Amino acid sequence: MRPVVLLLLAALAAAAEPAPTWAVAIHGGAGAFDPARLPAGPRARVEAGMNKALAAAGAILAAGGGALDAVQAAVTVMEDDGIFNAGRGAVATSDGRHELDASIMDGNGQRAGAVAGVQRIRNPLALARLVMERSSNVLLVTDGAELFARQQGVELLDPRWIDAPVAPAPAAPPDKHGTVGAVARDAAGHLAAATSTGGMSRKRPGRVGDSPLIGAGTWAQDGVCAISATGHGEYFIRHAAAHAISARIALLGEAPEAAARKIVVGELAPAGGEGGVIVLGASGPPAAVCNTTGMFHGWLLPGAAAVLRLRVEAVPAQETPSP
Amino acid sequence: MRPVVLLLLAALAAAAEPAPTWAVAIHGGAGAFDPARLPAGPRARVEAGMNKALAAAGAILAAGGGALDAVQAAVTVMEDDGIFNAGRGAVATSDGRHELDASIMDGNGQRAGAVAGVQRIRNPLALARLVMERSSNVLLVTDGAELFARQQGVELLDPRWIDAPVAPAPAAPPDKHGTVGAVARDAAGHLAAATSTGGMSRKRPGRVGDSPLIGAGTWAQDGVCAISATGHGEYFIRHAAAHAISARIALLGEAPEAAARKIVVGELAPAGGEGGVIVLGASGPPAAVCNTTGMFHGWLLPGAAAVLRLRVEAVPAQETPSP
Repeated sequence: MRPVVLLLLAALAAAAEPAPTWAVAIHGGAGAFDPARLPAGPRARVEAGMNKALAAAGAILAAGGGALDAVQAAVTVMEDDGIFNAGRGAVATSDGRHELDASIMDGNGQRAGAVAGVQRIRNPLALARLVMERSSNVLLVTDGAELFARQQGVELLDPRWIDAPVAPAPAAPPDKHGTVGAVARDAAGHLAAATSTGGMSRKRPGRVGDSPLIGAGTWAQDGVCAISATGHGEYFIRHAAAHAISARIALLGEAPEAAARKIVVGELAPAGGEGGVIVLGASGPPAAVCNTTGMFHGWLLPGAAAVLRLRVEAVPAQETPSP
Repeated sequence: MRPVVLLLLAALAAAAEPAPTWAVAIHGGAGAFDPARLPAGPRARVEAGMNKALAAAGAILAAGGGALDAVQAAVTVMEDDGIFNAGRGAVATSDGRHELDASIMDGNGQRAGAVAGVQRIRNPLALARLVMERSSNVLLVTDGAELFARQQGVELLDPRWIDAPVAPAPAAPPDKHGTVGAVARDAAGHLAAATSTGGMSRKRPGRVGDSPLIGAGTWAQDGVCAISATGHGEYFIRHAAAHAISARIALLGEAPEAAARKIVVGELAPAGGEGGVIVLGASGPPAAVCNTTGMFHGWLLPGAAAVLRLRVEAVPAQETPSP
């Protein structure tokens, strides 16, 4: 065949695969609350925070920015908000302290960074990213993580900086959940995930849940999926929940939502592990799956308005971005 | 058919499946050392330690004891030995402290416990088991883990208790690896895994590797496999190595050794992640896979002498226990 014909065939083959479209989804916690009975005030604050987070991530992605920057932007907005159980809204440990956990993962190269048990860091997710990019490590905990922060020029706050947490954060105390997280895919097709939390309310000092643990609460792998989880972290660790979902997609070819349902509804729920995940595949819209009555989440796709949900509903086909 | 015929058929079907046989395997670190050039003294000490660990686990399993008790017994022997990079043989952090990590997982119910960054605990693996059995948590770190230890009546040592580490521990300093671990299957078919380490030599304070992370350095799931890893932990975390092997066995039906090879040789090695794993399936003998020149490991099966290896070799078919 002549070269021009080969080029034409190549162009046709490329057209058959939909071009990567960017997408971002976030969550603000899952729990045994009744979305219909949420007081209007806190609900409006949660929705405003989620809209702001989606807008921050969407602006980056629409401008051709990376998925990693997008998930960091979304989570940072929610850490700074105060209504979520992360950053300045973090719940307290059993001895009245605040120990914050966060992790970030770049699907491009499967790089990851995480911190756990930090008390003096305003934005744990930003510190997790510094661990990923400026250390040879993945996970730094407690004092060591704060020492690294200081070496990186990150401001160390007075440990009592969260002296008046917003209470009751609707996504936190009643059921002790309320982690925030984001997953994104950029126009280049790269995936990223991030999760940040104050952990379970009245948790034991030193307790680390799934949020800062790669493969448990956070996972991103280009060509497969990006996942952020929220819920009773111990169960997500014991089931390696995020990686278990990813493995079903990668090894069995399951759709992200179906794979998430197998783990969250099929495995975690029977074991007693309450919670949910947001998951975004290499193509298509994000999905949210939980085994609780409520889960704050939302998503933003090109050319459409942000969508917010207080419980998981099936994503209608017409909300799938057209190729 | 008459009941007696049905019973006969059931008995024949049961006979076709080999009865579960107990098995235990251990490792004492993988690295870029040349097993043929190990000095006789340290090598003899490593071999003596591994033999003692296998004997401790084997005595439990031969007497009908559980896989969980067996892996704890084996790892405790190696923590107490001093020649391995775990417990009293732990290497130091960059600021001269010792921060120990350990985890244990019971394949029966996928329960798990872990501690990271403890400085004052003689047997971190025993504390990890207490976390599993006497708390509602999976992972406790640093001061919080030591507070829990004190509440459980565990002796807190002077942080300088490891004042004269055995140096050079052959499995540790040259390549900074040397974690210990064990996997076991008991006569009831239950699986368990345990890992304990001093971490990487001169590691950053607060750095947590894969050893205490469920799904990264340790995994056990009845009917699937038990795994303990050793090596450059950050890579094992970023690839969720232990769970990735388990997922291939569970979802694809791969043999444990083949699945381990896919991850350790096929994924970790190209990414630059040195190390290895021991893996034990729901039936059959254990396997060891590494991408380094050396890996201390050994196994013990019913009715046979303990086998020790300094590098990974294929397990000869005749060493498979006969049904």
